[in-house]
Amino acid sequence: MTKTTIDAQVSPTRHLGVLSKMEVNRLLDQSRGSVFRLYRQCSLAVLNYGDTSDNAQEVMDRYEKFDIQVTSKERGIKLNVTNAPATAFVDGTMIKGVNEHLFSVLRDIVFSHDSIIENPKFDLSKSDDTTDAVFHILRNADVLHPETNPQLIVCWGGHSISRLEYDYTKRVGYELGLRALDICTGCGPGAMKGPMKGASVGHSKQRITTGQYLGLTEPGIIAAESPNPIVNELVIMPDIEKRLEAFVRTGHGIIVFPGGVGTAEEILYILGILLHPENKGIPYPLVFTAPETSKDYFTQIDEFIGATLGAKAQALYEIVVDDPAHVATIMQEGMTKVRKYRKEHSDAYYYNWLLKIDREFQEPFMPTHENMRNLPIHKDQENHKLAATLRKMFSGIVAGNVKEEGLKAIAEHGNFEIKGDKEIMDRMDKMLASFVDQKRMKIEADTYVPCYTLVK
Amino acid sequence: MTKTTIDAQVSPTRHLGVLSKMEVNRLLDQSRGSVFRLYRQCSLAVLNYGDTSDNAQEVMDRYEKFDIQVTSKERGIKLNVTNAPATAFVDGTMIKGVNEHLFSVLRDIVFSHDSIIENPKFDLSKSDDTTDAVFHILRNADVLHPETNPQLIVCWGGHSISRLEYDYTKRVGYELGLRALDICTGCGPGAMKGPMKGASVGHSKQRITTGQYLGLTEPGIIAAESPNPIVNELVIMPDIEKRLEAFVRTGHGIIVFPGGVGTAEEILYILGILLHPENKGIPYPLVFTAPETSKDYFTQIDEFIGATLGAKAQALYEIVVDDPAHVATIMQEGMTKVRKYRKEHSDAYYYNWLLKIDREFQEPFMPTHENMRNLPIHKDQENHKLAATLRKMFSGIVAGNVKEEGLKAIAEHGNFEIKGDKEIMDRMDKMLASFVDQKRMKIEADTYVPCYTLVK
Amino acid sequence: MTKTTIDAQVSPTRHLGVLSKMEVNRLLDQSRGSVFRLYRQCSLAVLNYGDTSDNAQEVMDRYEKFDIQVTSKERGIKLNVTNAPATAFVDGTMIKGVNEHLFSVLRDIVFSHDSIIENPKFDLSKSDDTTDAVFHILRNADVLHPETNPQLIVCWGGHSISRLEYDYTKRVGYELGLRALDICTGCGPGAMKGPMKGASVGHSKQRITTGQYLGLTEPGIIAAESPNPIVNELVIMPDIEKRLEAFVRTGHGIIVFPGGVGTAEEILYILGILLHPENKGIPYPLVFTAPETSKDYFTQIDEFIGATLGAKAQALYEIVVDDPAHVATIMQEGMTKVRKYRKEHSDAYYYNWLLKIDREFQEPFMPTHENMRNLPIHKDQENHKLAATLRKMFSGIVAGNVKEEGLKAIAEHGNFEIKGDKEIMDRMDKMLASFVDQKRMKIEADTYVPCYTLVK
Amino acid sequence: MTKTTIDAQVSPTRHLGVLSKMEVNRLLDQSRGSVFRLYRQCSLAVLNYGDTSDNAQEVMDRYEKFDIQVTSKERGIKLNVTNAPATAFVDGTMIKGVNEHLFSVLRDIVFSHDSIIENPKFDLSKSDDTTDAVFHILRNADVLHPETNPQLIVCWGGHSISRLEYDYTKRVGYELGLRALDICTGCGPGAMKGPMKGASVGHSKQRITTGQYLGLTEPGIIAAESPNPIVNELVIMPDIEKRLEAFVRTGHGIIVFPGGVGTAEEILYILGILLHPENKGIPYPLVFTAPETSKDYFTQIDEFIGATLGAKAQALYEIVVDDPAHVATIMQEGMTKVRKYRKEHSDAYYYNWLLKIDREFQEPFMPTHENMRNLPIHKDQENHKLAATLRKMFSGIVAGNVKEEGLKAIAEHGNFEIKGDKEIMDRMDKMLASFVDQKRMKIEADTYVPCYTLVK
Repeated sequence: MTKTTIDAQVSPTRHLGVLSKMEVNRLLDQSRGSVFRLYRQCSLAVLNYGDTSDNAQEVMDRYEKFDIQVTSKERGIKLNVTNAPATAFVDGTMIKGVNEHLFSVLRDIVFSHDSIIENPKFDLSKSDDTTDAVFHILRNADVLHPETNPQLIVCWGGHSISRLEYDYTKRVGYELGLRALDICTGCGPGAMKGPMKGASVGHSKQRITTGQYLGLTEPGIIAAESPNPIVNELVIMPDIEKRLEAFVRTGHGIIVFPGGVGTAEEILYILGILLHPENKGIPYPLVFTAPETSKDYFTQIDEFIGATLGAKAQALYEIVVDDPAHVATIMQEGMTKVRKYRKEHSDAYYYNWLLKIDREFQEPFMPTHENMRNLPIHKDQENHKLAATLRKMFSGIVAGNVKEEGLKAIAEHGNFEIKGDKEIMDRMDKMLASFVDQKRMKIEADTYVPCYTLVK
Repeated sequence: MTKTTIDAQVSPTRHLGVLSKMEVNRLLDQSRGSVFRLYRQCSLAVLNYGDTSDNAQEVMDRYEKFDIQVTSKERGIKLNVTNAPATAFVDGTMIKGVNEHLFSVLRDIVFSHDSIIENPKFDLSKSDDTTDAVFHILRNADVLHPETNPQLIVCWGGHSISRLEYDYTKRVGYELGLRALDICTGCGPGAMKGPMKGASVGHSKQRITTGQYLGLTEPGIIAAESPNPIVNELVIMPDIEKRLEAFVRTGHGIIVFPGGVGTAEEILYILGILLHPENKGIPYPLVFTAPETSKDYFTQIDEFIGATLGAKAQALYEIVVDDPAHVATIMQEGMTKVRKYRKEHSDAYYYNWLLKIDREFQEPFMPTHENMRNLPIHKDQENHKLAATLRKMFSGIVAGNVKEEGLKAIAEHGNFEIKGDKEIMDRMDKMLASFVDQKRMKIEADTYVPCYTLVK
Repeated sequence: MTKTTIDAQVSPTRHLGVLSKMEVNRLLDQSRGSVFRLYRQCSLAVLNYGDTSDNAQEVMDRYEKFDIQVTSKERGIKLNVTNAPATAFVDGTMIKGVNEHLFSVLRDIVFSHDSIIENPKFDLSKSDDTTDAVFHILRNADVLHPETNPQLIVCWGGHSISRLEYDYTKRVGYELGLRALDICTGCGPGAMKGPMKGASVGHSKQRITTGQYLGLTEPGIIAAESPNPIVNELVIMPDIEKRLEAFVRTGHGIIVFPGGVGTAEEILYILGILLHPENKGIPYPLVFTAPETSKDYFTQIDEFIGATLGAKAQALYEIVVDDPAHVATIMQEGMTKVRKYRKEHSDAYYYNWLLKIDREFQEPFMPTHENMRNLPIHKDQENHKLAATLRKMFSGIVAGNVKEEGLKAIAEHGNFEIKGDKEIMDRMDKMLASFVDQKRMKIEADTYVPCYTLVK
Repeated sequence: MTKTTIDAQVSPTRHLGVLSKMEVNRLLDQSRGSVFRLYRQCSLAVLNYGDTSDNAQEVMDRYEKFDIQVTSKERGIKLNVTNAPATAFVDGTMIKGVNEHLFSVLRDIVFSHDSIIENPKFDLSKSDDTTDAVFHILRNADVLHPETNPQLIVCWGGHSISRLEYDYTKRVGYELGLRALDICTGCGPGAMKGPMKGASVGHSKQRITTGQYLGLTEPGIIAAESPNPIVNELVIMPDIEKRLEAFVRTGHGIIVFPGGVGTAEEILYILGILLHPENKGIPYPLVFTAPETSKDYFTQIDEFIGATLGAKAQALYEIVVDDPAHVATIMQEGMTKVRKYRKEHSDAYYYNWLLKIDREFQEPFMPTHENMRNLPIHKDQENHKLAATLRKMFSGIVAGNVKEEGLKAIAEHGNFEIKGDKEIMDRMDKMLASFVDQKRMKIEADTYVPCYTLVK
C-alpha cells in the first residue's frame, strides 16, 4: 500500500556547496566510475538508516534498482536518487539529517578519496603524512571547531549490548550533556547510540542547541551500523586505522562501556598509545564504566592489564561502577587539564597533534595463522610494544570469530595458535572464558566455540 | 554523603530582565506577602522536577527549610534560593531549563497575578475580559510568536498510562516533530511527556533547533505533575478553566490519547466548544488515537458521543488506531486549513480570537450532590449545551474519584445521583463500566467502587 | 514625472507584533480619535525624513491628503498609508528604517499614551512616578538592554552648526564607534546626526553590527528635526522634560558640542542634577568639545559656570579642544567607572535609578514675563538650586528667541526683564554677547535683537 | 608624543583557523622565505591603510623596522607584528577590519600562492585552468556565497576624481544599498571607495547587516591603493589579469564611473568579452554613469566605441547621466535576468562559469615599442578581436603615462607609434585629446605630454 521507494532530487544542506567546474566534472566522473560501487552502497546504507537488522548484502539486494547521480545546478551541486528507501523521507521530503549524511558520503567517498587519499602529496606509508591525511579528511568535513574548548568525549563499547547496559550508556550520556560535553562515537546501535541520545536530552535541558554528535565510521561497517540521523556530523574514514586515529586525535577523553573482544582491542589500542614514552604527561581522561550487573567485564580486563602491562597501565584509567554523574565529573575535570596542557604546549584544541602514534598502530594487522603464531607475547619488551602485540592478538580473535576471511581461515587451517608467557596466557584464558560466560564472544551464539588455542 | 540541598543565587535567563523600581518593590513585597506560600510551593515543585512519586505535601515537608527571595541587581533581578533540592543542580549550577522554570513561576505567580489578575481593568466575570486576561498572561510569558505559522499541536491524555501507551505517545510526537510541528501539553508524566520527547527526536533529525515545547499548568497540579525541563516555555495559568482556554486558543490542533474520566471531560470540553453554532466552519483538527491494544477506550467514547451528541459531533474528530504517521499527516493538513481560515478572516495565527467559548466553559463547576442531581441530561436541548452538561457530569465523577473535597462529600452523603434520559444513561453505564474494566478509573485501585449511582 | 506620493500597506518589523483584541480596538479608536491629529502629524514627519528644510506646517499643507489607518491582520497589526511622501519608499517598498520609525510613532503616540501617560497608576505630579513612567515608555520601546555593559554616549549640541563643526562631530562619533561605544542624540541634523554617522563607520570597521543609534525626540520637534533612518531605535517622549530625563537616565556619559542658548540650557540641566548633594559620587563622564576654531564657545560657558556655580561645578566636566580620540578615551574610561559604581550599588546598567532628579527639573518652566522677572538669580542658595534657576532663564531666552508663544509675548510686553547679582549679570552679558558675535543666537538672523534686558 | 608604532600579537577573526601541522610549517617557512618581501610589504600596506598619500617605497622606508611573524597556538595560528603603524590600532588593539585584512594577506600571499599558484595541478597556460585557479583563490577566501541571489555590483572608475564625481559615486552606492545590492571594487580611494560608503548607508537604512563589500586588489597596487577597512572581504589576486577575471566572474553587473585611460581599458576589456560570439545572450548589465558636469567623458567613449566596434557594442551598455536611482534600478532589473539565465543554464550564481574569456584577455600584454607598433588596429576582423587590440593599445598608453617601465621605454626610444585605420585613428585622437582637456591623462600633470604618436 505505502510506496516503499521514492525518487527525489536533493540539495546539500551545507557541505560541498561551492565546487569548481573541474571538481564537479571529477565528481561526475568518479561517482560513476571506479568508486561508484562503494559510493552507491554507502549512500544506500545512510538512506536505509532505521533498518539495522539486515546485513549489507540483503540491503543491496532489496534495493537493487536504487541509483544515485550527481548533477550541477545554479546553486551548486544536487543529487538525483531513484528507488531510494521510503523510510528516509517524510511526506516525500528527505529527512534533513539523512540529507546531510548523504552529502557526507559524497564528500568522503568521492571527494576526499580523490583529493586526499589519491593525492600524491600525502605519502601514506609515513606516519606524519597519515596523521596529516586524517586531519585533512576531518577538516574537509568541517568537524574541527577552533572556537570551542576541549569538550568532545569519545564513547566506545559494544553494539549489541543488553537493554540494561544500553540504558546505562544513555544515563552516562545524559550526565555528559548536562555538563555541556559533546559526544563522538562510531555510529550504529548500542553503546554508539545510547550516549548520544542521553546527551541530547541533557543538552536540551541546558538549552544547548549546538551540541556536537560526531559519528566516525568507515565503509566496511557503515551498512551494518548505519548512522542514526541524530549524528549531526558524519565522517566516513577510509579504513579502520584512520578511524581509530581520528577518534583519539579529535576526542579529548574516552569512556569505554562493556563490549566484547573488539572493545578489548580498542582498550589495548589507546593504552598502547598512552604508554608510549613520548606521550608521558599528556592528559587523556580514560574511564571504563558499567552498571553494577556488568562490572565483571571490566574486573576481568583490569586484572588482565595488571598482569600484562602492569600498574603503570592501570594508572591510565579509572573504573567506575554504576555512577554516571561521577563518570561525567571525571571527564569534566579532565577537560580542564587537557585545555591547560594544550595551551601550555601551543597544541590545537581541535586536533591532538602532540600525541605520538606509532606506525604499527597506523598499519592494519593481517590475522593469518602465521602472524598469529609469531606474535611476541612476552614481557621482555617495553609495555607499549606489548600492548601493540596484544591488540593484534585480539584483532585476530575478532576476525576468527566473526569476519568472513577469518572464519574461512579457521575452517581451513584449524584454530589460531597463540603462544606466549605462561602467566599472560593463563590470564588471557581466564578473561576470554569470562567473556564466553557473559556471552560476549559472538552476538547470537549460544555455544561459543573458540577460534584459538593457547599454546602455553 | 551527597549534599541533598543547595544554596544558590540565580539570574534570569530571559524573562523579567528589565523591571521598574516600582515593579521590583512590588515583587519583593508580594513575593514575601499574601502569595508567598503559593509562590514558594510552586518554586519548590519546579526545583523538585524529577521527583514525581511524592505528593505535594510530602515534598513541602521534606524541604521545609527551603526558602526563595527576590533581590535587585545591576543587570536586573536575581533569586536567592536556600535549601533547594540538589537534583535541580549540576555541580552546583542550576540546570538552565529549571532556572527558566523558576523565573516562570515568579513571573506567573507574582507578576502576572499582580498586573493581570488583580488589575481592575479586567472584569473576569465577563467572557471577553477573561479571554483577554488569558491572552495577557500568555503574552507576558512570551509564548505567542507572530512570525510562525500555525504549527502548535496540543496533546491530551492520561498521566498514568501503560508503558505501551506511553511509547505510542512518543511515536506520535516523533512523527509530529519530523513534520516540524510543535507540542503543547499540560506538563507532568505519561501522555504529557511522551509527545515532547518524541518530537524532540524528530526535530533533532530535521535539524530544527527552535522547537516549541509549551507546558501549561496551574498551581493545583504543578506539584504533582511538575514540568520536565524539556518544556522550554512554561506558563502557570491561574486556574483550570483558564488553562483549558489557553490550550484551545493557542493550539492549532488537538490529539487525544487514552486516559480516564478526566480525558473524557476534556473531550467534551472541546466538543462543546466546536459544536457551538458560532464556531461552525472554524477548522480545528481533532484526532483521538491509541495503539491497537487500547483502541477500546475510544470505541466506547465514540459510541457514547454518537448516542448523545450525534453524528454531527462525531464528524468533528477522527479516530486513528496505531498509525502515528497518519495522525501527524492529518495535523499537518489541518494546519494548512487553519492558516487559510485565519488569513481569510484576519485572525491572529498565535491566538484563536474567533473561537466562541461560552461563559459556562469559563466558570468552574462545583460538584455538589445537588448540582450533580440537577444536571439536565437529556436531548431536548442544543447539543453544545448537552456537551457542557456532560462535561460537568464527568468533572463531578473525577472529583468523586480522586479529589479531596469530592471524596469527603461522597463519604458523607453517599454516591452522587445522576439522572437523565434512559438511552444516555445506558450508554454512559456501559462506557464507565468499560473504563473500570480497563482500570482507568483510578490510578492504583484494583477494585474500583463507583462514586455515583445512575438514576435511570 | 516621478510619482510624489505613494499608497501602501505596511507591516511592523518588530514592534507591536502581538496585541490583544481590546488593545487593537483601542488603537483603532484612539488612532482615529483625540490623538489622531498628533499621530498623523508625527507619522508624516517620519515619512518625510529627508526634507528638513521645511517647517512643520508647510509639510502638513503639502501632504494634506496624507492619511494613515491601523488595521488588524492574521500576523498582527498593519498600517495603511495613503498619499505618503514617495521619498520614504524605494521602488514602491518602504525603507525599512522608516518603516520601523512609523511603528515607533504608533507605539509612542497611541499605545504609550494610552497605557502609560493616561494610566491612573502613574501619578505624574510625583517625582518617582514620573521616573517610572519614563522607564515604562523606554521599556515598551525595547531600548533598554540588560545584557549590555554601560556604553551609551549622549551627544548634545546645535542643530544648525557650521560644516566644520559638523565634520568634527563625525570625527568624534567615529572614535566612539571604534571603541564600541553607542550613540544617543535628539534626532535631526547637525550635532544630532554627525556622531551617529561617524559611529556607524567606526562600528563598521570594527565589524560591530549591533550598534545602538538611539534617537529621543518629542512631538513638538519631530517635524522640524525628523529622525534619520540611521536611528535604529526611536522613541517619541511625551514632552521636553521627560525627554531630558530619558537622556540622563539611559545614557552613561554626555558629550556636548557647540550650539546656542539651548545647548547652554542643556548644560545647566545636567550640571544642576550632578550638583545635587544626593548625586555626589555618582560617576557621570561629561565632556564639552569643539574644534579649534570654535573653542571660544566653551571658554565663555566655562567662565560663566566658574563665576556662578564655582569650581565644584567646573570639576564635573572636562573641556577638550580638537581631539576626538581623547574625547572617546575619556568616555571609555568613564564607562569602567560607571559600571563599577552600578555594580557596587546594585543599580541597573540600563537605567540610572540612583540619580536624583529634583521635581523642578521634571516640571516645565513657563517663561512668562513675571516668571522671568522673579527668577532668584543670586548666590545665596545651594548651587544646584542656582543651576536650576539659570536653566530656567536660558529656557526663557530660547522661547523669546524662537518659540511661537515667546515671540508673541515679547512683541506684546517688550523684553523680558532679568535681574540678579551684579557679578552674575555681568558674566551673563558677556557670554550672551559672545553668542551673538558667533551668530549662535538665532539660525538665520544676521542682526540679532535681544529679547531680554538685564536689570543689574 | 603619541607612540607611532606598536607591537602586538594578533589572532585571526575567521580565516585560516584550522591548519594542519604541515601547512603551518610551510606557512612558517614560506612567510620567512621567498615570498617574505612581498608578504611583509602587503601586510604593511594593509596596516597603513589611512595613509594614501605616500607611495609604496616611502612607506617601506618609514617603517623599515616593521616585522611580521607567524606562530602556531592552541586555537590555531597567530601573528606577531612589531613596529607596526599605530594608526591600525585603537588603544592598543588592532581595528578588527584591519585584523581581517592582515590575515587575508597571509592567506592570499602565502597560502594561496603555495597551494594554488604553485600547485602543478593547475596549468596556468591554459584558459580553463586559469579560470579554475581564480575560482580556487576566491573560494579559499570564502567570498563565494552559494546561498545568495545575484546581487554583486562591480564599480569601476578613477581613483583620482573630483569631489563632485566622488560624491556622485557615493550617491549611486547609496541607491544600490537601498536596493539590497552589494558592492565590489578594486580597493583604494575615489570611485573605489565612494560606492561602498554610499551602499553602507543604504544598507544601514534598510537594516541590512550582511552587506558584502568585496575588494579585489593585487600586490602591485595594494600599497598605493590600500583597502579601507570598510571592505569586509579582501582578496589579493596574483596579477592584474586574474583580478580582472575575478571581477567579471563574481560580479553580476558592472557600473563604470569616469576615470582616465585605465578606465577606458577596463571598458574595452568587458566589451571584448561580451562581444565574443559564445557569450551572446548572456545577460550582463553594464552602465556608464557620471554627474551632469562629467558626462563628456562617456560621450567621447561612446562615440569612439560606435566608430570602432559599432552599434552592436553600443547596445551592450547604457549611459545614464546624473540619475543614481535609475542606475540602481537598471542593475536591480538586470539581476532578475541574470538569475533567470543562470537558473535556466544551471550555472552557479556565485561564479559566472559560462562566460567565455579568450586566452588573450588572460595573458598580460607587454607594451614594448614593437608590440605597440604591430597592433592590428583595423576593422577587418571580428569586433571582439578589435576590442582586444584596442584594450592592449590603451594598456600601453597607461604604461607610457605612469608605469615605471613604460616611462623608461619612452624616455629611451621616444613615443610609441600607433597606426591603424584612419577613421579609428581620428576618433581616437579626438577622444584622447578630450581626456587631456579634462585632465584625466595623469593625476598631477598640468601640461600633459603624450607618450604616443598616431601614425595615420
